[in-house]
Amino acid sequence: MIKVGIVGGTGYTGVELLRILAVHPEATVSCITSRSEAGMPVADMYPNLRGHYDLAFSEPDLDTLAACDLVFFATPHGVAMRMMPELMAAGARVVDLSADFRLRDLDVWANWYGMAHESPEWAAKAVYGLPEVVREEVRDAQLVANPGCYPTAVQLGFLPLLENNLVDPSRLIADAKSGASGAGRQGKIGMLHGEVGESFKAYGASGHRHLPEIRQGLSNAAGRDVGITFVPHLVPMVRGIEATLYAELTNPEDFNQLQSLYENRFRDEPFVDVMPFGSHPETRSVRGANHCRIALHRQENSNVVIVSSVIDNLVKGAAGQAVQNMNIMFGLKETLGLEAPAMLP
Amino acid sequence: MIKVGIVGGTGYTGVELLRILAVHPEATVSCITSRSEAGMPVADMYPNLRGHYDLAFSEPDLDTLAACDLVFFATPHGVAMRMMPELMAAGARVVDLSADFRLRDLDVWANWYGMAHESPEWAAKAVYGLPEVVREEVRDAQLVANPGCYPTAVQLGFLPLLENNLVDPSRLIADAKSGASGAGRQGKIGMLHGEVGESFKAYGASGHRHLPEIRQGLSNAAGRDVGITFVPHLVPMVRGIEATLYAELTNPEDFNQLQSLYENRFRDEPFVDVMPFGSHPETRSVRGANHCRIALHRQENSNVVIVSSVIDNLVKGAAGQAVQNMNIMFGLKETLGLEAPAMLP
Amino acid sequence: MIKVGIVGGTGYTGVELLRILAVHPEATVSCITSRSEAGMPVADMYPNLRGHYDLAFSEPDLDTLAACDLVFFATPHGVAMRMMPELMAAGARVVDLSADFRLRDLDVWANWYGMAHESPEWAAKAVYGLPEVVREEVRDAQLVANPGCYPTAVQLGFLPLLENNLVDPSRLIADAKSGASGAGRQGKIGMLHGEVGESFKAYGASGHRHLPEIRQGLSNAAGRDVGITFVPHLVPMVRGIEATLYAELTNPEDFNQLQSLYENRFRDEPFVDVMPFGSHPETRSVRGANHCRIALHRQENSNVVIVSSVIDNLVKGAAGQAVQNMNIMFGLKETLGLEAPAMLP
Amino acid sequence: MIKVGIVGGTGYTGVELLRILAVHPEATVSCITSRSEAGMPVADMYPNLRGHYDLAFSEPDLDTLAACDLVFFATPHGVAMRMMPELMAAGARVVDLSADFRLRDLDVWANWYGMAHESPEWAAKAVYGLPEVVREEVRDAQLVANPGCYPTAVQLGFLPLLENNLVDPSRLIADAKSGASGAGRQGKIGMLHGEVGESFKAYGASGHRHLPEIRQGLSNAAGRDVGITFVPHLVPMVRGIEATLYAELTNPEDFNQLQSLYENRFRDEPFVDVMPFGSHPETRSVRGANHCRIALHRQENSNVVIVSSVIDNLVKGAAGQAVQNMNIMFGLKETLGLEAPAMLP
Repeated sequence: MIKVGIVGGTGYTGVELLRILAVHPEATVSCITSRSEAGMPVADMYPNLRGHYDLAFSEPDLDTLAACDLVFFATPHGVAMRMMPELMAAGARVVDLSADFRLRDLDVWANWYGMAHESPEWAAKAVYGLPEVVREEVRDAQLVANPGCYPTAVQLGFLPLLENNLVDPSRLIADAKSGASGAGRQGKIGMLHGEVGESFKAYGASGHRHLPEIRQGLSNAAGRDVGITFVPHLVPMVRGIEATLYAELTNPEDFNQLQSLYENRFRDEPFVDVMPFGSHPETRSVRGANHCRIALHRQENSNVVIVSSVIDNLVKGAAGQAVQNMNIMFGLKETLGLEAPAMLP
Repeated sequence: MIKVGIVGGTGYTGVELLRILAVHPEATVSCITSRSEAGMPVADMYPNLRGHYDLAFSEPDLDTLAACDLVFFATPHGVAMRMMPELMAAGARVVDLSADFRLRDLDVWANWYGMAHESPEWAAKAVYGLPEVVREEVRDAQLVANPGCYPTAVQLGFLPLLENNLVDPSRLIADAKSGASGAGRQGKIGMLHGEVGESFKAYGASGHRHLPEIRQGLSNAAGRDVGITFVPHLVPMVRGIEATLYAELTNPEDFNQLQSLYENRFRDEPFVDVMPFGSHPETRSVRGANHCRIALHRQENSNVVIVSSVIDNLVKGAAGQAVQNMNIMFGLKETLGLEAPAMLP
Repeated sequence: MIKVGIVGGTGYTGVELLRILAVHPEATVSCITSRSEAGMPVADMYPNLRGHYDLAFSEPDLDTLAACDLVFFATPHGVAMRMMPELMAAGARVVDLSADFRLRDLDVWANWYGMAHESPEWAAKAVYGLPEVVREEVRDAQLVANPGCYPTAVQLGFLPLLENNLVDPSRLIADAKSGASGAGRQGKIGMLHGEVGESFKAYGASGHRHLPEIRQGLSNAAGRDVGITFVPHLVPMVRGIEATLYAELTNPEDFNQLQSLYENRFRDEPFVDVMPFGSHPETRSVRGANHCRIALHRQENSNVVIVSSVIDNLVKGAAGQAVQNMNIMFGLKETLGLEAPAMLP
Repeated sequence: MIKVGIVGGTGYTGVELLRILAVHPEATVSCITSRSEAGMPVADMYPNLRGHYDLAFSEPDLDTLAACDLVFFATPHGVAMRMMPELMAAGARVVDLSADFRLRDLDVWANWYGMAHESPEWAAKAVYGLPEVVREEVRDAQLVANPGCYPTAVQLGFLPLLENNLVDPSRLIADAKSGASGAGRQGKIGMLHGEVGESFKAYGASGHRHLPEIRQGLSNAAGRDVGITFVPHLVPMVRGIEATLYAELTNPEDFNQLQSLYENRFRDEPFVDVMPFGSHPETRSVRGANHCRIALHRQENSNVVIVSSVIDNLVKGAAGQAVQNMNIMFGLKETLGLEAPAMLP
């Protein structure tokens, strides 16, 4: 059994890790930390876990964490980078679900996150853990930076086009929509039900923190800098991300091979499902599951490839992908603990 | 492996059975019928099942069903009762999720369902499968009538009070609220998102089909006829039932022992969770799970016991309870395939 | 034109007052205060008001308020009672939408609101402004305590039964459900969309601040102390309250006259609509409107009267009723500015 | 008073026309037709109208309609075109809210709507009634084709860019999102709350009927054929459309003048609100109101103009715009009956 520690477990990614790990046959959560809630049983905060965990939140403690086989960070940005040098020195293996180690360029990081990076050494060593791209590096990584939710949906949707150099990489557009759980579990007025319910809006349209992460991933895939416009939107629902992607095919005849290109690219990927051409993936078709479902579209006389990509922001966009990474790091079957179908309706 | 057949699999209880059984280690679905959709792969109708089932809907066929170890009926009322005599004669075991075999008094049944009952023999033999009441009878039953969603939430909430004769049985009130999936998957205007969204209402307040079923179950528990007022309401959400129950304590001093009474009654029940006195169970705390969570309340100077009881209408209120019954019927661990925590948020 | 001031305008009742008054032909808002947002144009906080108001929030100032013809308080409890003595002395007329002046018994008030009442003189003089009960007193009142949202729905639903002494007043039950806007516009974690969305629960089941207000109103109507159990619930929607009321008819034969009794009681009330017997009022049928719609039900062989009563918690349950009171106080047509139909769907 | 007739009043645009006209000071609804519901009082179907209308649905009758000053068609496509020749011959004036007269090219129309057009004469004469473009033609029109919901949001957002030739007209993208009321009030399984709730998806991504209408309008504005990709999405809410528009600025320096260009373009438009640069219009800020709110965005180092445009699909996207057109046609103040602020929250 893998002994798991979770740092910062009171948010939505924390409870989602607990939900998934509750039925994982090869992992057990031995500690979960929260400064503010130390002493409170996790099942008191999250009644869905009643009967599944006796565990209580505890103060973060380096020795306890270092004694774990794997530590998940489910903390706001800035926390993991401060604890990482000591934890790495102690030999711990970490999957960081925060944004601290996702960007290679630390000036860009500092610019978007409003603080200097305090662990440049590990920022350089961390593996950006999108398994569909870097599975092998994840296997031996000591520190995995778990991708963001939007970046997961957008990258998986664009990858085959960019890897195969089929589209104009300077004209990518990602129009993405997320449920409200993506904003976390903090008492912000703008995220009240009274504000979010029965309404829809764009946000971060002039620039969002996931933009540089997306640009970095897509540029790696394309082998050159890409130009991408990314606009997130807030949907009056709890879970789910849909990203509609637009790219211009360099050679319109390539449309004929796109579907098989996508199918081949993801044939062996247990968590990426290429649906029939012209399908409309629904976010509920992945609710609670670690899948990304993707479908391609073309409009008459157009050379624009349209890709619709859906994930559950808390699963493939956070906790599920983190467990997938854990499975890879520990040589387990990649789908272990992640087999249940999505909940529909 | 238990070979499972499902009759009438295109509705919400059908897809929920498939979702649950997809990860059940001792059961496999060998056929699923639908006259209207025969030939269509189930994963085409329900994309959450892509990768989990190769199965397609087929025409209902007695021999095929009789060859199953267990047949679930997830049909509108009136269907199961017509097929049951032949199926029973063929030796099949059945869990019927429809209302056909829930009522003992067939005049009452005929009155509420608007047709004569066509299988009185099996209506008399069927076991009303609320495991928390009749576990032993379920074990050997050939035909189990799976309880309705509201009746499950209401009965579990009232049972300890009535079994112990603590309240006035002539003055029971059950104010229940359900998500829209309870109405099934038919194209009714009244169930459109445009009608249900952002609105709340009572329905069936002058009489609902679940009223006689509730009355029958509570009368059995009380050992005498009870008087119950039951009003269902429609909540703008997909899943979940909350029932707030009101009863008058005969002896107000009994308030002191109520919490322990409930805890003792359900101590060994894997799927009934008595929360601390004064808790407020949320439907999301059981979403996707087979649990019923219950909490007790008292208002100052009052001898009214208030019970709040929540279930997922599609799980403990339908498909989950059906699988629980299957587990009992086949001598399996009762929780098999039903261990995953609810999905919160 | 009535010169209106609003104290504490940043919450949902504040913006709702502004929305309604924007089209009121005889009133104009001349000042709206907020300590925290002083200087901010109201249309910047509430973009639905762009083009309707040039006004900005200002620091509360006694002289400015006293110069208004009418002042609405849309503040948390405790604020109005502190400002009231000075304001009353200055001759202002006030409709207080907070709870400060709703209860006659100040010990009860202190007990539920956790502070001593600081304006007992005006608590005694205030008129509890449910126009359907005390229209005449409102007309000449200097201070009107605007009823709470739940108390409005519950009282209007029960009134005819109690005024005519038809039911057992010791056995009243009010099971009420509200949208999330009822909790106000504060950054509470429990009211996040991620917490409220797709879930349903009771809250305050052991005692809610509206309970003593309801008890006071119903006891006045009955001419004796009533026994009432009141349980509120949170619905995943923004606006609307539905209350399902249960009472035992003393004489079951009275059922025959109930419908006409209700119709007669409210015949001349512009904002109370008695629907046909057996109807199911939907909250959306009053969304944005100042109406209360009521319907009666009876279940077979039962002497329980079931009443379903719906209002928009922000309109008839707050700002609309306040404007209705203003209209009465200033001798205007009672429906002025409140004529538009509800928004359905 | 303008005597108004409504053909096909049982859908969402029908009830919305009734809601708006209920408070219009210069119009009165004298007949509303429905073959299926003839004889039913409109207030029985739509309880929000109780107390506002005594009217019942009636069989459509040419003479009765011809006797109206104005007839609104709120029918499925194919109905208006069949009745139009006779009605026009009888001298009636019509605002058709259906799609029958929106497209100039009747081959395109036939292709998208799956039937031949039966009134080519009036298709040629009809004025496409987007008042912000063709106000003068509307004034004297006998037949106004009321624009579709998506086309209204998309055209208003793109107009200034295309009219001024500032962007590459071959690379327009419109990613649009709508609440469920846009699909009308028919019993389609796909529009059930159980299907739409808590989920998000694209639909019609390979081609939607509003695409040719959008293309026609934008091409007119640009003075040349445009290339536009349009993808609609379904949001789990009842009302509202948000369209996020992407266009490439030919000369990036033009970014500096865009905001003032938009403000000038719409300065005198009562129903188009250009918000400050970088704002995020919410659909709720126009809920129930006839406004379109628009905001502009730019991402760092990009020459892509991002426009977010919101309307209420049933108001500015249907019934409100129809009443605006009526006001223009009859020489009334354009905002008459349309002055109330949107309902927020």
